[in-house]
Amino acid sequence: MKILGIDPGYGITGFGLVEAQRGQFRLLRCGAITTPPNTDFSWRLEVIYNDMVELLQVTKPDVVAIEELFFGHNVTTGIGVAQARGVVLLAIRQAGLEVHSYTPMQVKQSVVGYGNASKHQVQDMTRRLLHLDAMPKPDDAADAIAIALCHGRSNTSLLAQAYKHQGGFI
Amino acid sequence: MKILGIDPGYGITGFGLVEAQRGQFRLLRCGAITTPPNTDFSWRLEVIYNDMVELLQVTKPDVVAIEELFFGHNVTTGIGVAQARGVVLLAIRQAGLEVHSYTPMQVKQSVVGYGNASKHQVQDMTRRLLHLDAMPKPDDAADAIAIALCHGRSNTSLLAQAYKHQGGFI
Repeated sequence: MKILGIDPGYGITGFGLVEAQRGQFRLLRCGAITTPPNTDFSWRLEVIYNDMVELLQVTKPDVVAIEELFFGHNVTTGIGVAQARGVVLLAIRQAGLEVHSYTPMQVKQSVVGYGNASKHQVQDMTRRLLHLDAMPKPDDAADAIAIALCHGRSNTSLLAQAYKHQGGFI
Repeated sequence: MKILGIDPGYGITGFGLVEAQRGQFRLLRCGAITTPPNTDFSWRLEVIYNDMVELLQVTKPDVVAIEELFFGHNVTTGIGVAQARGVVLLAIRQAGLEVHSYTPMQVKQSVVGYGNASKHQVQDMTRRLLHLDAMPKPDDAADAIAIALCHGRSNTSLLAQAYKHQGGFI
């Protein structure tokens, strides 16, 4: 199963495509959609939308996992991020794909094992799960990969439970 | 000049189409794009986007005015509203239209004359400016009309200044 993880933003939208098979994960592709600062905001939304449409066509994921937003200290930035997330969700919906949202805490919990893990711990565990020598850059791509892993691992454990229930294994 | 005012939301997106001519305003059309609660959020975004694309095709505005978001006490609702605003801006951009954002305070300042006017004062002044017997419903449509008037009046005073500068009048 190919999972596309997305960390939405209006300056940088990170993405990571992960192949999940029998509880093992492989990184297929990652990167970021970027828009330059101090440019027309509607234009930036259009660039993000167009690039997302193309990304979905090229990567052909089976499912998409995206970061759930919560607003901390910077609400103004949050308004922009949420608007970008809106056009990303629209592109996913128009592609007929299922989308799952995960909070940063859920991602940490799933990848590292506890919800208060540091950014470094998440990146290190992500690197190990994918058998990589170093973490991909930029950070937004790394975050997106962790979101994809979060979905893969949640899904795997659900499957594992289902198999266990039937006396099978995964 | 036809001005389309928009008050974005994920449950209700109000709109109001106003004809502005020589400082006089006439209401051409208003209404709301609505999506039912407790339905898939991506689906709601798609409905808003599709309806907005159609609305722009049908109403053919010369310019669009939209409410600028600011987050008060309900940040969770705000995240949803911002995502809806994102797909609305995308539709406007794809239609090749110019869009102007106004804060609620700017709308009050422009329509009533001071930024702390009550909702009732804005609605009453909007009704008078448009020579209507009663304010259109729902409130979101009324708010959208006020946003269109705000743009029309800002524009008029800019034009008035320009004319004055040239020794002309408007």
